[in-house]
Amino acid sequence: MRIARFSIDGNVAFGVVEGDASTEGGPLLDIIKGHPFAEFERSGQKIPLSKVRLLPPVLPNKVVAIGRNYAEHAAELGNEVPAAPVTFFKPSTAVVGPGDPIAYPSFSEEVHHEAELAVVIGRMCREVPRERVKDVILGYTCANDVTARDIQRSEQQWARAKGFDSSCPLGPWVETELDPSDLGIMCTVNGEQRQLGRTSEMVRSIEDLIVHITEAMTLLPGDVVLTGTPAGVGPLNVGDEVAVTIEGIGTLTNKVIKRG
Amino acid sequence: MRIARFSIDGNVAFGVVEGDASTEGGPLLDIIKGHPFAEFERSGQKIPLSKVRLLPPVLPNKVVAIGRNYAEHAAELGNEVPAAPVTFFKPSTAVVGPGDPIAYPSFSEEVHHEAELAVVIGRMCREVPRERVKDVILGYTCANDVTARDIQRSEQQWARAKGFDSSCPLGPWVETELDPSDLGIMCTVNGEQRQLGRTSEMVRSIEDLIVHITEAMTLLPGDVVLTGTPAGVGPLNVGDEVAVTIEGIGTLTNKVIKRG
Repeated sequence: MRIARFSIDGNVAFGVVEGDASTEGGPLLDIIKGHPFAEFERSGQKIPLSKVRLLPPVLPNKVVAIGRNYAEHAAELGNEVPAAPVTFFKPSTAVVGPGDPIAYPSFSEEVHHEAELAVVIGRMCREVPRERVKDVILGYTCANDVTARDIQRSEQQWARAKGFDSSCPLGPWVETELDPSDLGIMCTVNGEQRQLGRTSEMVRSIEDLIVHITEAMTLLPGDVVLTGTPAGVGPLNVGDEVAVTIEGIGTLTNKVIKRG
Repeated sequence: MRIARFSIDGNVAFGVVEGDASTEGGPLLDIIKGHPFAEFERSGQKIPLSKVRLLPPVLPNKVVAIGRNYAEHAAELGNEVPAAPVTFFKPSTAVVGPGDPIAYPSFSEEVHHEAELAVVIGRMCREVPRERVKDVILGYTCANDVTARDIQRSEQQWARAKGFDSSCPLGPWVETELDPSDLGIMCTVNGEQRQLGRTSEMVRSIEDLIVHITEAMTLLPGDVVLTGTPAGVGPLNVGDEVAVTIEGIGTLTNKVIKRG
């Protein structure tokens, strides 16, 4: 099931996506009563997806991200795969949705795309045992861990390099029925392929990451875990259109604009 | 003015603290109508401070913290003062209030106290010019940037070392009328002095830090900026009572317990 968050006429709601691009008249959204973090009912009230504005599929309290989780990507930046997962935060103020602009930050001259599989947490959890990890996951979406690479090199901690406004596009929706263990993940810029990998290349599995993170901290419904990026990261420039596609989920597209 | 957040009989409210320990009958809380992030009225309804449970004085969306902002503290851990401020996040799930326990994390054997002056943001802001910094500040409180020092050494980014549950005690209240430029700051453990410094020893001023942070990201009302810790950091053990006192604000006291 695909759950989207959207606005129409100033109202915000969640809806279940029915059909796809091949459906006559295009996909529909069946509006959810309430929110998707508990048992929920579909209202049966349906609107065309083309009539709404898709929003970030969740409003995370925090985004916990993992660095260097694909060996080939670690190598391309001259890094080794670390003994412990590199764990950092992106703040809620960095999150934007599908179609929203990525505003090129004023303090960087080298902004990179990083296509990532995002895990959306479904319930409050702490110290999750490995065999229970699947129970705390609502589903999966696409993410772009947009990074000011020059600032990442010059500042020891990455709060500014990876936490600036609009540095965390998420979307287009949450896919709740998906085996995440071997999915194709791709990033294109202006239609040209830049990153290509498979989630099976992750150094640490999603189970490992969630055990590691929740050993330290509580995750809340709607929190997001980013699982690292495959090789092929590279620059974004003002005017570029960057697209993250993950097999079984869909495509997250954002345009890079000058920060206003 | 001192603004506290508190609960009584299951209700949560903000109140203005009137009087102090020397007041006959003890200090009172004049309950605020609504919240303190805009013009507000006092209700005139007063309750003794001793009858309420003080909560974290704000519920931050994010805490942005600065490392190595006192030269003597940087030196005691063998670090130099960095060219750019070391900027990292503590998540909202790390925040606890005055009197709340600090739960010793299971994955560390070396948890340290770090007494810090906390700046509480009063309004949504981005790219704040230096001369407008004072306009975005609601006030100041005490913070303890509790740190798993062993994990900080072994993991390159500090999300787990400084972001575990209960690693960010804040309180006891927000002081809104205070010149923060030269305040005594002290940390005691079981009544023994461990850290002692003055905010005038900060390498970067509060203005510098807020310009630096908001160059990259939006701060929201209730967000908190931690300004670094003076020399004298050291271990906390289960059973310890740690107290952060800042001149003109008050004392934030927390007890260290075994994580349950």
